[in-house]
Amino acid sequence: MSYNYAERVSQMESSVIREILKVTERPEVISFAGGLPAPEMFPLKEIREAFCHVLESGDPSVLQYSTTEGYPPLREYIAARMREKGVEAGPDNILVTNGSQQALDLLAKLFINPGDVVLVEKPSYLGAIQTFRSYQAGFVAVPADNQGIDVEAMELAIKRQHPKLIYLTPTFKNPTGVTMSLERRRAVADLLGKFETPLIEDDPYGELRYCGETLPPVKSFDIAGQVIYLSTFSKTIAPGLRLGWIAASRELIRKLVLAKQGTDLHTGTLVQRAVQSYLENSDVSGHVLAIRKEYGRRRDIMLEEMQKNFPDGIFWTKPDGGMFLWVTMPDHFDTIQLLERAIEEKVAYVPGAPFYPDREGLNTMRLNFSNSTPDQIKNGIRRLTRLFTSCMN
Amino acid sequence: MSYNYAERVSQMESSVIREILKVTERPEVISFAGGLPAPEMFPLKEIREAFCHVLESGDPSVLQYSTTEGYPPLREYIAARMREKGVEAGPDNILVTNGSQQALDLLAKLFINPGDVVLVEKPSYLGAIQTFRSYQAGFVAVPADNQGIDVEAMELAIKRQHPKLIYLTPTFKNPTGVTMSLERRRAVADLLGKFETPLIEDDPYGELRYCGETLPPVKSFDIAGQVIYLSTFSKTIAPGLRLGWIAASRELIRKLVLAKQGTDLHTGTLVQRAVQSYLENSDVSGHVLAIRKEYGRRRDIMLEEMQKNFPDGIFWTKPDGGMFLWVTMPDHFDTIQLLERAIEEKVAYVPGAPFYPDREGLNTMRLNFSNSTPDQIKNGIRRLTRLFTSCMN
Repeated sequence: MSYNYAERVSQMESSVIREILKVTERPEVISFAGGLPAPEMFPLKEIREAFCHVLESGDPSVLQYSTTEGYPPLREYIAARMREKGVEAGPDNILVTNGSQQALDLLAKLFINPGDVVLVEKPSYLGAIQTFRSYQAGFVAVPADNQGIDVEAMELAIKRQHPKLIYLTPTFKNPTGVTMSLERRRAVADLLGKFETPLIEDDPYGELRYCGETLPPVKSFDIAGQVIYLSTFSKTIAPGLRLGWIAASRELIRKLVLAKQGTDLHTGTLVQRAVQSYLENSDVSGHVLAIRKEYGRRRDIMLEEMQKNFPDGIFWTKPDGGMFLWVTMPDHFDTIQLLERAIEEKVAYVPGAPFYPDREGLNTMRLNFSNSTPDQIKNGIRRLTRLFTSCMN
Repeated sequence: MSYNYAERVSQMESSVIREILKVTERPEVISFAGGLPAPEMFPLKEIREAFCHVLESGDPSVLQYSTTEGYPPLREYIAARMREKGVEAGPDNILVTNGSQQALDLLAKLFINPGDVVLVEKPSYLGAIQTFRSYQAGFVAVPADNQGIDVEAMELAIKRQHPKLIYLTPTFKNPTGVTMSLERRRAVADLLGKFETPLIEDDPYGELRYCGETLPPVKSFDIAGQVIYLSTFSKTIAPGLRLGWIAASRELIRKLVLAKQGTDLHTGTLVQRAVQSYLENSDVSGHVLAIRKEYGRRRDIMLEEMQKNFPDGIFWTKPDGGMFLWVTMPDHFDTIQLLERAIEEKVAYVPGAPFYPDREGLNTMRLNFSNSTPDQIKNGIRRLTRLFTSCMN
């Protein structure tokens, strides 16, 4: 039988790259392609204790339907974390979601009519581009440098294209690892004051800082309730729990609750109760510190090996945190074509082009350093070096 | 700040009834309004053992990102259950979802353009109507009697209105509790053969049969892959886990996977692993038998009390299973208006009108019997009797 799908489905193509990358699951391939945290850093024991504790209470409501907004003590905890970041928030400003990806989907559902424009950075998180595209959004992509988005270009783009939403990842951006400077954060907040456009500030990596000073989120400069802040426990606890949140104005949270009701009623009751118990009873900041130390070490090793080995003409970012760095090859390179040869060398990366809505960046690639051991990083960079050297001669 | 929402948001109104029903959370109100399973029947101990077991394995992949399709052994288990129901299915025909509600949302996303028509029964599950409406669907509502949907009227409606989707709950339907007869199931399957319209067969309650013979799902008569079967562990294990599934053709599952990727990446890894472990290691059918026995008893008590007490002129369904029955008052009654008086009497129900896309059924109401104890049922029916008697004199 042939199905008569909705128009938006034509925008939901499975990516060729995803298909190629399936081979990276072979154990002999060192993969810098994924966006996975290091599983050996998961607080397995503490999470087990939290689930057992909550299920031992004898209170069956941990398995019952619950409110769409989320478990009230968890919303309280998140609101308190937001206040520590300089964001005025109470529990009514928080919606618990199935990871940040659901937050993006709910926001697209709430704001995007077919043909509406979303302003993004060049490059920008692939998963966000895909979600907006599935609601038939168009894009205006604004250049960014090592200080973050170009604010003047952003203003011009807002004036010319009237975007319905702005989507930024100011801190340790996926895919480049770049962080927006404090000056630009203020400038973006000031700019928002001139327009009515809501800004989605996606911050999944903010806790993973390995050097430099913590910067306040753009949301902390937000007066009118224009900034919609997203984050997740995927990088600080574990992604397989699927637990994230949206911090926004009460009015917007109320609308998001309506959208979420029709989408999946609510996020799992048990997982919210267990994570809240974990957050309350464990040394969370000690755990995040341990992650920072280990990922920082891996980043250092990757940067060192690249510095020592990569041939001239190749450039890369030096992120202060997060899970990724970004490599720029000489102009004529096509990293999509190169990927099959990389896999022959038993090393994988993600080509950069899909991170641009208009498929620029053919000579770029994203490398992940959180999910490989130091030895794998050394060997993987050597394999990449071999590949690059052979291509550049 | 005022937000400029997408057009579909005008269809996402918070219901007045939901607001009224918030007062039913007061402990002195006996509520037949909710759609909740009895929490005292949840297999709390076994679920705890399953989570502990999976987290004690020392395998951190239980907390890692996982595939959008779902945990392979869980998909295998579900496929085997489908085959027991007479549905040809392998794991590739299964997508794990965050409860059935997400299945409805993904299907609406995949099929509904604004203005498309969905064929539903009169009355039909409120949550499905809301989800389709949030994608700007219109409706054609076809009458149903105590044997299920009127198949002739259904054929006429398909011919005249060309619906994009058909949505039915053939077994112990929410809200009426009615089950479609075997003859009608076959007739619906035959009818589908004549048209290209996909049918969503929503079956959350199928396991909860208290008398009569188990009937095969419509999907078991499906040759062309037109029937999309939905079910859930919410009623047999616990709803707070948010775990359901879609059984459909491989092609459709592949498209649903694309839609789910952009929506929330995947359903929680840990919850899928733990539920699979529970299903494998516990006496699941013994547990379901215990639920059946208890809910059957509660249904019997409710029916008995209604028979003994309700004044003449009131009619109700006698469901063979599920969680609900359906009361029809004399024509001039308005159960929405009556609700506030019911709450004064400290008893609550859901008015029937929202279960009709065009707000018919003003004189109907839904009663839930699974979430009240026998004593509460007796007292609640007495309170309703007092109310009805006072209104009918």
